[in-house]
Amino acid sequence: MLPFKTLIQTDKTLKLPVYQQIANRLIGLIQEGILKPGLYLPGSRVLAETLTLHRKTVIAAYEELISQDWLVAVPRKGVMVADNLPVIRPRTFRGAASAYGEESAFSFHHIPVAPFMPGVPAGNALVVNDGFPDARLAPLADWVKECRSLIESPRYHKLLMYGNATGSEALRRQMMEYLSNTRGLNLQLPHIMITRGAQMAIYLAAALLIKKDDLVIVGSPDYFFADLCFEQLGARLLRVPVDEEGIDVDAIEQLCSQRKIKMLYLVTHHHHPTTVTLSAARRMKLLEVIRKHKLPVIEDDYDYDFHYSSAPILPLASADHGGNVIYIGSFTKSLGLSIRIGFMIGPADFISEAANLRRLMDLRGDNLSEQALANLLADGTIDRHLKKSNKVYKERRDLLCLLLKKKLGDAVQFTVPAGGMAIWLRFSKKYPLQQVSQKAAALGLRMSSGEQYHYGTPSQNALRFGFASLNNKEIASVVAILEKVLQQW
Amino acid sequence: MLPFKTLIQTDKTLKLPVYQQIANRLIGLIQEGILKPGLYLPGSRVLAETLTLHRKTVIAAYEELISQDWLVAVPRKGVMVADNLPVIRPRTFRGAASAYGEESAFSFHHIPVAPFMPGVPAGNALVVNDGFPDARLAPLADWVKECRSLIESPRYHKLLMYGNATGSEALRRQMMEYLSNTRGLNLQLPHIMITRGAQMAIYLAAALLIKKDDLVIVGSPDYFFADLCFEQLGARLLRVPVDEEGIDVDAIEQLCSQRKIKMLYLVTHHHHPTTVTLSAARRMKLLEVIRKHKLPVIEDDYDYDFHYSSAPILPLASADHGGNVIYIGSFTKSLGLSIRIGFMIGPADFISEAANLRRLMDLRGDNLSEQALANLLADGTIDRHLKKSNKVYKERRDLLCLLLKKKLGDAVQFTVPAGGMAIWLRFSKKYPLQQVSQKAAALGLRMSSGEQYHYGTPSQNALRFGFASLNNKEIASVVAILEKVLQQW
Repeated sequence: MLPFKTLIQTDKTLKLPVYQQIANRLIGLIQEGILKPGLYLPGSRVLAETLTLHRKTVIAAYEELISQDWLVAVPRKGVMVADNLPVIRPRTFRGAASAYGEESAFSFHHIPVAPFMPGVPAGNALVVNDGFPDARLAPLADWVKECRSLIESPRYHKLLMYGNATGSEALRRQMMEYLSNTRGLNLQLPHIMITRGAQMAIYLAAALLIKKDDLVIVGSPDYFFADLCFEQLGARLLRVPVDEEGIDVDAIEQLCSQRKIKMLYLVTHHHHPTTVTLSAARRMKLLEVIRKHKLPVIEDDYDYDFHYSSAPILPLASADHGGNVIYIGSFTKSLGLSIRIGFMIGPADFISEAANLRRLMDLRGDNLSEQALANLLADGTIDRHLKKSNKVYKERRDLLCLLLKKKLGDAVQFTVPAGGMAIWLRFSKKYPLQQVSQKAAALGLRMSSGEQYHYGTPSQNALRFGFASLNNKEIASVVAILEKVLQQW
Repeated sequence: MLPFKTLIQTDKTLKLPVYQQIANRLIGLIQEGILKPGLYLPGSRVLAETLTLHRKTVIAAYEELISQDWLVAVPRKGVMVADNLPVIRPRTFRGAASAYGEESAFSFHHIPVAPFMPGVPAGNALVVNDGFPDARLAPLADWVKECRSLIESPRYHKLLMYGNATGSEALRRQMMEYLSNTRGLNLQLPHIMITRGAQMAIYLAAALLIKKDDLVIVGSPDYFFADLCFEQLGARLLRVPVDEEGIDVDAIEQLCSQRKIKMLYLVTHHHHPTTVTLSAARRMKLLEVIRKHKLPVIEDDYDYDFHYSSAPILPLASADHGGNVIYIGSFTKSLGLSIRIGFMIGPADFISEAANLRRLMDLRGDNLSEQALANLLADGTIDRHLKKSNKVYKERRDLLCLLLKKKLGDAVQFTVPAGGMAIWLRFSKKYPLQQVSQKAAALGLRMSSGEQYHYGTPSQNALRFGFASLNNKEIASVVAILEKVLQQW
C-alpha cells in the first residue's frame, strides 16, 4: 500500500469538509501520476484506520470521486482509479506546490503606467489627493435608502436580473432633462449612454476611433490616464500647449491643416491637471476649426457640475459642432468615487457601437445603481447636493488659497481655479517636489511628487492639490505641515 | 434692434432659471454669428420690456455672461459683445438644432455583435433567459444592510474616496480563503484581482495576450461574448468540437503541434452554451498538453458554485499547469446580475499588468461593494446562500427536465446538466427555433431564437433554456406555453 498517511493530510479546522479534502487530495495524486489508472484503492475501512478518520468520511470521499468519474466501483473487487484516464509519469512525491508564482510562463503585452498616485492613507495620515470629492458630504443616506426601497419593491427584482450596455432607460431619460437644464443640450435617448465613470467613456470612444499610428492631439500637459489610454490603443500623441486660456487653438488649427488628425482630446472646464477653463474666444474659434476640418473631438467635461466663480460655460457639445463632438461627463464626483456612473453623448450610430464594445468589456451596467441615481435626479436630491457642495467647496478653495498665499508665500505659485476640486500648485525650483513630498510624508502628509502630471511633458514642479475632500481644519493642518517642510530648506 | 423677442424665448416651467436660459441663448446667438463681436446689446430695461421679464432677470443674465467673458461692460456705453471673439459668418436665424443626429460626421470601427438576446420583459411576459440566477433568492437584504452599515461607519468614508484597480484588499484576502476552501487553490494576494464580473476578466486577459492575427482555440460552439471579444482584439479563432465530455482535447493537441497557438479559451464546468462539464480524463490529458506546449489558457469557470449532481470538479487552475492557466470566476450569479463582481487568478506579473489595463478602462473597482462582499463571505452569508440556492436550483432543474420530457416528448432533446442555470435544449428539425420563439412571443413567452449560441458554428436548432430564475409555477407555465406552440405544427 502507498504511504497514504503521508500522502493524504486532512485538517478539521478548515471550512472545507474533511471528505472533500480527501477527495481533492486523491485527485491531485491521480493527476500527479502517483495513483495510476487501474490501481485499486484500499477499502474504506482500511483507509479510515490509516488516516484515523471515521469510515463514513472515506466512503463519502470515494462516492464523490466516483460521481466525478475519477474512480470506478467494481462489483466485488472494490474501488479503482478509472482506467480511461491518461497514464502520467509521476514527478515527485510531495504535494503540488501552488502553480502560481511571481512570473508567468508565457509572454504578454506591457501596459504603460503613470508614476505614483497617493492611495489609501495608512492610519490617520492626511492625504492631498488629485481632486476628489468629500465622501462625508455625499448624499449617501439618500443613496442607500433609495437602493433599499428599490430592492424591497417586488417589481424591481427585474432590475437585478437584467440591465444593458447602454444603461438604464430611466436614467437616460433623466439625463435628457438634466443635460438640457444644466448644459442646454437637446438630446434623444439614442444619443445617451451610461458608463462606469468618465474613464470608461474615454476608453470606449477612443477605442472606436483610433487605429495603430493614428495622430491624436492632446494638451501639454494633459490628463495622463487619457494619454496612456490613447497610447495603449496605438495612437501617436501630438502635444499642444495649454496656457492660462486653455488649450492653444491656433496650434490645433495649424496641425489640422498640415496633417491628417484622427481626433482631439480636451478638458474644457478645469483642465486636468492645470485647472484652467477654455476661454469663450477659444471655444468659438475651436468650433470653427472642428467644423472646417471635420475633426472628431472627445470633450471631457468631468468637472462641469462644480464651478464657483460663475455658472459653468456651456460645453462645445451644446454649440454647433457639426456632430463631431463626443461629450463625456460623470456623476462620480457627486456621489463618492466608489459609485462610478458616467455618461457619453454622441451621434446615435456611434453610441450604438460604443454599447457593443462595452458589452465585450463589461456586459452590462449596474441597473440598480442607475435606477437609484435616476430617482435621486428626479426628486431633486442630486441638485440640492450639488448646490450644497458647490458652496462648501468654494469656501474650501478660498481658504486653501488664502492660507497658501499667507503661509507659503513666494515658495508656491497658483491661479485660483474657477471651479473643480484642485489647485494647480507650482513650487519654486528651490523646492523640488520629489523632496517636498518625501519630507511631507515624514510629517504625516501624503501628497503626490507631481510626476504623473508631467507624463510626456516637461516638468513644471507642480501638482494637483485637491481641496474639496479636506475640511477647514484639515486644510489648516495640511498647510501647516507644508510650511514646516519648506522651513527645512 | 435685432428681433430679440423672436431670438430669445424663455420658459418659466423649466428647472433652469430664466436668467440662465437667456444667457445660454445669447451665447448661442454669439456663436452663430448673429450677435457680432463689438455689438452693443440693448439696455437691460429695454430688453426686459421686449421679453416681458423683470429687469433683474436680464441684469443677472448679462452679469453671468460678463463673468464668462462673452460680454464686456463698457463704462457709460453699456454691454457689448466681447470684441476679442472671432467673427463668425451667420448661417441662419433659427435656433441651432441639436448637433446630434442619427449618423456621425466621422468614421469609426465597427464592433461585431451577436444576434438577439432576450432583454427586460415588457409587462408581465414570461422570459426564458440564458441562465440567470433568481434575484428573488439573492441575499439582498443582507447586502443592503451591509452597505448601509459600511456607509454609516465614519471610518468607512475612506472606502468611498479610494479604491484601486486590483480590487479591495479585504475582499482579496477573503478570496484567498474562499478559493482554497472551494477549489483547493493556494494563492497569495498578488495572484488575485477583482473585476467587474467575469466578462471584464476575459477582456483584460485576452487583451494582454492577443496580437493581431494570433491564433486562439475556442470550442464549437463557444460562449459568443468571448468569441466576439477575441475577434475584436484581432485574433483568428480555431474551433474545436465540444461533445458530451467537453472540448476535444486530442484536437487541441493536434493544433498545438501543427501551429503556433496563442491561447486556449474554455469553460470547464457547464460549458457555455452546451452545459457539458469537461471529463476527468480530458482534464488530465489537457493538463499534459498545456504543460508540454506551454499553452496559455483562459479557464472560464463562471458557474463553479452551482453544481448539483456532485461536488464540482476541481479546476485546471488547481492542478499542476505550470503557471499557464488564467482562472476566471464570478459572484454575479450569487448576488443578482446587477451587482457585478468577478475575479481573475494568475501569475503575479500578469495580474499586475491586468490591473494597469483595467485602470485605463475603468480607473478603479467599487470599493464599497467589494468590502460588503468581503464581509458577507467572512460571516458565512454567501456560503449559506449558495447552499440554499443550489438546493432550489436543483429542484427547478429536475422539474423542468421532467416537464419537458412529459409534455414535449420527442420534439426536444437534452442531457440533464450536472449544474449551472440552464439546459441546452435542442428542438427537432420539424420545429425551427426562429418560428418557435416567434409563436411563443405571441403567447406571452419571450425566449431566444438560438442564433447567438451558434455564432460562427453550425446551427443545432438549440438554445440555452434558463431554469434557475423561474419558480415552479413559472416553469409549469413556460412548458405549457411551449406545448401549445408545438401543437401549431
